[in-house]
Amino acid sequence: MALIKKPVTGMKDVLPAEMQLRDYVIGVIKETYARYGFTSIDTPCVESLANLNSKQGGDNEKLIFKIMKRGEKLRLAEAKEENDLTDSGLRYDLTVPLVRFYANHANELPSPFKALQMGYVWRADRPQKGRYRQFMQCDIDILGEPSNLAEIELILATTSTLGKLGFKGFQIRINDRRILKDMAAYAGFSEESYDSVFITVDKMDKIGLEGVEAELIENGYSKESVDKYLGLFKGLEVNKGIEGLKFLAETLGDFLEADAKLNLEEIISSVDANKAAEFEIVFDPTLVRGMSYYTGTIFEIAMPQYGGSCGGGGRYDKMVGKFLGQETPACGFSIGFERIIMIMMDEGFKVPGVADKTAYLIEKGISGQMLSDILGQAQEARKNGEQILVVRMNKNKKFQKQALEEQGYNNFKEFYKNPLN
Amino acid sequence: MALIKKPVTGMKDVLPAEMQLRDYVIGVIKETYARYGFTSIDTPCVESLANLNSKQGGDNEKLIFKIMKRGEKLRLAEAKEENDLTDSGLRYDLTVPLVRFYANHANELPSPFKALQMGYVWRADRPQKGRYRQFMQCDIDILGEPSNLAEIELILATTSTLGKLGFKGFQIRINDRRILKDMAAYAGFSEESYDSVFITVDKMDKIGLEGVEAELIENGYSKESVDKYLGLFKGLEVNKGIEGLKFLAETLGDFLEADAKLNLEEIISSVDANKAAEFEIVFDPTLVRGMSYYTGTIFEIAMPQYGGSCGGGGRYDKMVGKFLGQETPACGFSIGFERIIMIMMDEGFKVPGVADKTAYLIEKGISGQMLSDILGQAQEARKNGEQILVVRMNKNKKFQKQALEEQGYNNFKEFYKNPLN
Repeated sequence: MALIKKPVTGMKDVLPAEMQLRDYVIGVIKETYARYGFTSIDTPCVESLANLNSKQGGDNEKLIFKIMKRGEKLRLAEAKEENDLTDSGLRYDLTVPLVRFYANHANELPSPFKALQMGYVWRADRPQKGRYRQFMQCDIDILGEPSNLAEIELILATTSTLGKLGFKGFQIRINDRRILKDMAAYAGFSEESYDSVFITVDKMDKIGLEGVEAELIENGYSKESVDKYLGLFKGLEVNKGIEGLKFLAETLGDFLEADAKLNLEEIISSVDANKAAEFEIVFDPTLVRGMSYYTGTIFEIAMPQYGGSCGGGGRYDKMVGKFLGQETPACGFSIGFERIIMIMMDEGFKVPGVADKTAYLIEKGISGQMLSDILGQAQEARKNGEQILVVRMNKNKKFQKQALEEQGYNNFKEFYKNPLN
Repeated sequence: MALIKKPVTGMKDVLPAEMQLRDYVIGVIKETYARYGFTSIDTPCVESLANLNSKQGGDNEKLIFKIMKRGEKLRLAEAKEENDLTDSGLRYDLTVPLVRFYANHANELPSPFKALQMGYVWRADRPQKGRYRQFMQCDIDILGEPSNLAEIELILATTSTLGKLGFKGFQIRINDRRILKDMAAYAGFSEESYDSVFITVDKMDKIGLEGVEAELIENGYSKESVDKYLGLFKGLEVNKGIEGLKFLAETLGDFLEADAKLNLEEIISSVDANKAAEFEIVFDPTLVRGMSYYTGTIFEIAMPQYGGSCGGGGRYDKMVGKFLGQETPACGFSIGFERIIMIMMDEGFKVPGVADKTAYLIEKGISGQMLSDILGQAQEARKNGEQILVVRMNKNKKFQKQALEEQGYNNFKEFYKNPLN
């Protein structure tokens, strides 16, 4: 039989050690968000292509694994193009399914609706180290809360979760799409050019002020606008964090929406006052976040020591309305689950577990009543919360014990057919 | 925008109340099996079609959701048949992936390998009440243990899990494929006819002795063989349980493999002596279990009060060898996760949770420092393990509180902009 032992291209098997960590992290996430009143939901891994292609997914829409129609619906001979053969696919994120879920069940759900969704998503990306075609996403959203109570609670809950997982010294970088726009307007860019300008600003981390300047000029923007724009960022390099907001207020004048400034000030000071983990929250005027659906606050978890972002999110007040036909304010956070797992694995994180893990080594040939009596002991210990593994003794007992120690067994009991052995 | 609110045909959204139960059951399963030394693993939801179609899946192979090739690999114009367009699909069970996983990683895994795998599987079945095209499977397997230590531990762990979930008064029905064959041989059926005969015997529960007799005659078997065969089952109706094994030994003589009889006797007495839940384990000579890969012991969880089986499994000593090229004894149990969830929902099972669930109702317009102070109180309570939901107060406060009570909130705190209110 020609059997393929490897998983399909770009997807991976999860071995016990990693799975134990994944289960632990999932448990901490679920427990922590529950403390904040979030409830878990689940949606099918398969979505209709009509929804997946509704322009909310950006470039991910090009990476869909499509599922073939079946039976009579599959008309191969008549098919002219791919989409004649398929009408569903694997989800590439949890946002489209969440919004569909909310549109489908709004009447049965509390308002605001605080949802936690963890599940696999699939993207036909070119496989590369640490990047898989099937990976876990972890999204936390508040639908129906217009004020920044949503942002504050999302950030407090998420950072509290990270803290419980042992992370510290990270940053929450925060900005507001409205401030990004106000700055561009002040510099004289036209509204149609904002998206293109922001794509360049988004690279500030990598290419620096000079790189951004060069790229904007190269993209054909006037020297005057670029100078004025870059002047703001130079000023913001001196006036860091919350000082930056004051600097913008003074410099931009009426161009700066007072609401947007107040929004960030309130979020930053409330998070700072009430945080339950060691991190700092900073205003970052270069933060853009790729997806076009964001309408207000945007934020990101930055862990520079681990090479970048471990999640992010923001407010997307228009998207649910497009699906539901009724405006619904929304704000969400997506935790970079796979990245966090990778970091914890690399750091050799030890999952807290049962303290007493005992292996019973029983001689080959032990059976019947004798086996039953041994299992009785094991059952008794398990009732008391111990972890008991009952295995046959190998010829090379020393080697076997070493292997079991690597699996975390710290006690051994040996059983022989003839107890005098 | 034409958005589809419903999930795709035959799949379902999971609302918070059900999700809470599912998470709870998953937690109890993972914790209980860990006590028995099982470790969790995970495999991709997508498998190569070559593996899915390797004849281990029986009729499920007809129900595969196939995934279209992408990019250059998809040659629509040249495609003559379905399989020219696809080389992978969604898994229909967890057994094929487990065996592939084991073949791929045998060198990195302990022996015996005690695996727990929970995950979604997909079957393009005709949708019907309580039966979905995406559903959770929960498989527990021991690879590499030839003796009935595997069967006994699997049954003890599984029944202990069911007990912790509140199930009692159920039955574990057990049989051995070898005894089924010995009985058929004694009656004079030819070896080629066994599978067909067992399909009829499998209906004993529904059509009774007379129905089985009629169907066997109708299928062309000799009256002599049918009479002799039915005689055995009549004798077994009088000699129930372990007595049935003695009756078979006396009646079948050399036709009955002594090993098979001893195997069941040992399992039944050891499980009886060490069980950690209220159930009975009984020898059931009519138990067949559909899949052709079983080689020895077979068993099933019977809950007649809930209309049938809630899981089952058995020994399949030949299957891993076919994939790995090296014989590996194997024994597994599959828990009917979705059925168990459905029963617990129907019975109104209350998920044990946080005792103190408090909702803070805050007046609309509370923001800034005042909001921050309230969140400070919430953070303090959460640190102490309480669940705190912070929501805006609605105009109809009474209605809002009722709704929150239904979500399990039993304490309320109200906050007003003007504290004198």
